[in-house]
Amino acid sequence: MSQPPIRSVRILGIDPGLRRTGWGVVESEGNRLVYVACGSVEPRDTLPLAERLLGIHAGLEKVLAEYLPAEAAVEQTFVNKDGAATLKLGQARGVAMLVPAMHGLLVAEYAPNLVKKTVVGAGHADKTQIQMMLKILLPKADPKTADAADALAIAITHAHHRVSAQRLKAVGA
Amino acid sequence: MSQPPIRSVRILGIDPGLRRTGWGVVESEGNRLVYVACGSVEPRDTLPLAERLLGIHAGLEKVLAEYLPAEAAVEQTFVNKDGAATLKLGQARGVAMLVPAMHGLLVAEYAPNLVKKTVVGAGHADKTQIQMMLKILLPKADPKTADAADALAIAITHAHHRVSAQRLKAVGA
Repeated sequence: MSQPPIRSVRILGIDPGLRRTGWGVVESEGNRLVYVACGSVEPRDTLPLAERLLGIHAGLEKVLAEYLPAEAAVEQTFVNKDGAATLKLGQARGVAMLVPAMHGLLVAEYAPNLVKKTVVGAGHADKTQIQMMLKILLPKADPKTADAADALAIAITHAHHRVSAQRLKAVGA
Repeated sequence: MSQPPIRSVRILGIDPGLRRTGWGVVESEGNRLVYVACGSVEPRDTLPLAERLLGIHAGLEKVLAEYLPAEAAVEQTFVNKDGAATLKLGQARGVAMLVPAMHGLLVAEYAPNLVKKTVVGAGHADKTQIQMMLKILLPKADPKTADAADALAIAITHAHHRVSAQRLKAVGA
């Protein structure tokens, strides 16, 4: 008897920021991960706030139109003591979550520690370890910014946890 | 010699919040202010974050389609020590500024003290004083929530400061 075909799903990971929003697209096919693209959106920081947000919107719209992801994931934000920075990040994050939702995509959220644990195997991995593991998991990826690398890590995290959820379903859990 | 006609402009004020985003529309005709409409958008708080943001987006899109404002204004946010609250507010604020910008509207920002000073005449007015002045400035307005009232106050602030700027231009300043 043949196995049911494994459906592939294209995932967009987003690492939001007002200055730079990283994005990464991977294709998840069962256990297999294939790199599709990554980059970052950097609206000019001399623009008024509404126009910077519009720049993030336009950049992510372009990514959605070009790579047609089916699901999206964003890292849960670490809230720090700097209120002004948190507000800026929140504004970028609001737009980063809205844009895929406007296209009907599911937008999952993952805690930073889960992203590290999924990609590196340890919840307190540093950026260098994440970038090393990215080279192994997605050998064709060549992220130009740390934010694009983080976005790929978030996409991988979603790919992994989707699959686990599907397996649990398959055994009737 | 006849005066040049005074052009009226329709202004949307927004008081963003994840739980409740207030909005208010006024028509500014020179010194005259006319109330148009106000209300609030309240996405169900049991929904996932992306869907709550989508609810704010949909609510503001409806307001823009129905009342066709030409300019928008949002209050500059007071950043407090509660990082989680600041992040939530930031996310709602990002969407609230993006939606009018997506329609090509100018989105002005005003400090809370300037809003109070413009509406009440004092930078440290409380909510009751603002609501009393709203009844005088916009007798037909009957905001059902404090957020809708605040949104009207923001719209009034923009109306006032637009006019000042035009007068300065007229005298060649």
